[in-house]
Amino acid sequence: MCAKRLGEATISLDNAPGVLASASCAGKKEGEGPLARYFDYIATDARCGEKSWEKAESALLRRCFELCCGRAGLAPEALDCVVSGDLLNQCAGSAYALRESGAPYLGLYGACSTMSEGLAVASMLIDGGGMGNVAVCTSSHFCSAERQFRYPLEYGSLRAPTSQWTVTGAGAVILSRGAPPPYVNLITVGRIVDMGVTDASDMGAAMAPAAADTLARHFADTGRDFADYDAVITGDLGVTGSDILRELLGMDGYAPDARYFDCGAVIFDPKRQGVCSGGSGCGCSASVFAGYVLGNMRSGRWKRVLFAATGALMSPTTSAQGESIPGICHAVALENGRD
Amino acid sequence: MCAKRLGEATISLDNAPGVLASASCAGKKEGEGPLARYFDYIATDARCGEKSWEKAESALLRRCFELCCGRAGLAPEALDCVVSGDLLNQCAGSAYALRESGAPYLGLYGACSTMSEGLAVASMLIDGGGMGNVAVCTSSHFCSAERQFRYPLEYGSLRAPTSQWTVTGAGAVILSRGAPPPYVNLITVGRIVDMGVTDASDMGAAMAPAAADTLARHFADTGRDFADYDAVITGDLGVTGSDILRELLGMDGYAPDARYFDCGAVIFDPKRQGVCSGGSGCGCSASVFAGYVLGNMRSGRWKRVLFAATGALMSPTTSAQGESIPGICHAVALENGRD
Repeated sequence: MCAKRLGEATISLDNAPGVLASASCAGKKEGEGPLARYFDYIATDARCGEKSWEKAESALLRRCFELCCGRAGLAPEALDCVVSGDLLNQCAGSAYALRESGAPYLGLYGACSTMSEGLAVASMLIDGGGMGNVAVCTSSHFCSAERQFRYPLEYGSLRAPTSQWTVTGAGAVILSRGAPPPYVNLITVGRIVDMGVTDASDMGAAMAPAAADTLARHFADTGRDFADYDAVITGDLGVTGSDILRELLGMDGYAPDARYFDCGAVIFDPKRQGVCSGGSGCGCSASVFAGYVLGNMRSGRWKRVLFAATGALMSPTTSAQGESIPGICHAVALENGRD
Repeated sequence: MCAKRLGEATISLDNAPGVLASASCAGKKEGEGPLARYFDYIATDARCGEKSWEKAESALLRRCFELCCGRAGLAPEALDCVVSGDLLNQCAGSAYALRESGAPYLGLYGACSTMSEGLAVASMLIDGGGMGNVAVCTSSHFCSAERQFRYPLEYGSLRAPTSQWTVTGAGAVILSRGAPPPYVNLITVGRIVDMGVTDASDMGAAMAPAAADTLARHFADTGRDFADYDAVITGDLGVTGSDILRELLGMDGYAPDARYFDCGAVIFDPKRQGVCSGGSGCGCSASVFAGYVLGNMRSGRWKRVLFAATGALMSPTTSAQGESIPGICHAVALENGRD
């Protein structure tokens, strides 16, 4: 056996993979935000030279993936696997970005939790011994998401204060056996939590209970708390959702302090950039993780980080049919040493 | 290490999990087809008592999952993980079917290859030691797929001779460490193959090259051929697509004989049931695998089977934008003994 169970839901890896390379790409608006210097590439227009926003999303993800492969010194077809997914119907953003890669491909759907879901799956596949180098990718695009999930952009519809701005961005990480730290040491796979929120303009509220469930389980399984991490990071709860998470975890006896932040709450400047409750989308947590988070781990500022991307598993059809919004959150603990 | 590599792309599991339980559910039309006696439950109407076809698909998958858990003697929340996905936008069929399960959940998107993708992922997670019992689920529904991918049913649009009939069906399998055979011994994760087919009414042709690629890689990695298996099974190439696969593999020097069949070509009676080239959808290969295939393995008729579900990774949006259709195929070898 390579991995073992800690408590109810957490898995401790014996041959924890390291991060061989990463790349973070973003759109123009994200490139004007507070994390600008952590992006490896900033697109200058929403089309990325393509004829549609969907093709633009694939082009941005492809660029991010190729940049990451280049840094790893690996040809794409030398990878043992690519795991990827996105928000577009049938995860077409990923399939078209990666169809020429020549690498074995496992498609995921975790909505905006895809980056941590992918890190969890890739880490376990490497730890198990069957794979050596696995890339984890995901993306989102404001324009392709807006017209698929909400209204045609041309409507210029008003936004609710709790609504979030889908990030145009992509993240790619290559995990490898034998790569340098940070290592992915611990994994807590989340369960679906649906507390009955039906407002598709308040995704933070829909996802916060799933984030609270996964973080509480991770802490219970490991005996850790916020104080044991240099940073505890959720995906895209936004300002509203991360306030709800603080409250929920507070009721459970945990005390989210300044070590806690949400990628959606930090990728934009809410006051200056008009994004209401903050950023969202697979590309939000992915680009923040692959740039800002890994950057701070490599510099030594942070030694131990818990990354817990969050996803809302509804579709426009289920919302139209009156269904509430199920949330999910997967957590991975990265450390500059092995456990 | 638990798993090891065979050749370029095949993984041999050391602690290969067995099949603890399975369940296969189908719609009325499928229940009138040649495999009727292998389904554990046959729905009597397309709505399954729900108000919409999407909710009906979730209800059918939920019933299948619960039936499988019951046979395994496991409460859903006792599972270490459920891996599931489907064709509905944002994989909503799975999320809503499983949101009350209380089990950790990993969403997949492999289009109609989901059952073999799920078996591959679940087997590797169990083999790695971190998980003991993992359920693999997927579903499709004729009516929800038809209106999402093609035309509103009320149009009564004409069907092309190469078109396939999306199966209303679901499959669930629980893999476990220490469970009895068949064991999942070998895994070949497929890569995306796109040969430029743009006709969304000819998905078999779009997916056949991916199936040929994965089967040829599996055979090359393992030194096996069709003659080494009692059955080699593709997912949903249909009559047209499986003929193309025979031709492609023939050019590669392999000889698909009577041991080869396609789930889409056997689930319906094409002459009597008016399904053109046969069945398709995640539920096609899943219900055939969980019922007919595992049934024949349990009875001892087949000792060694290669199951290779196939998927088309396009979306209606990419087709409308003139893109060709990328295909994928993942193969898992099941045997009544360990390798």
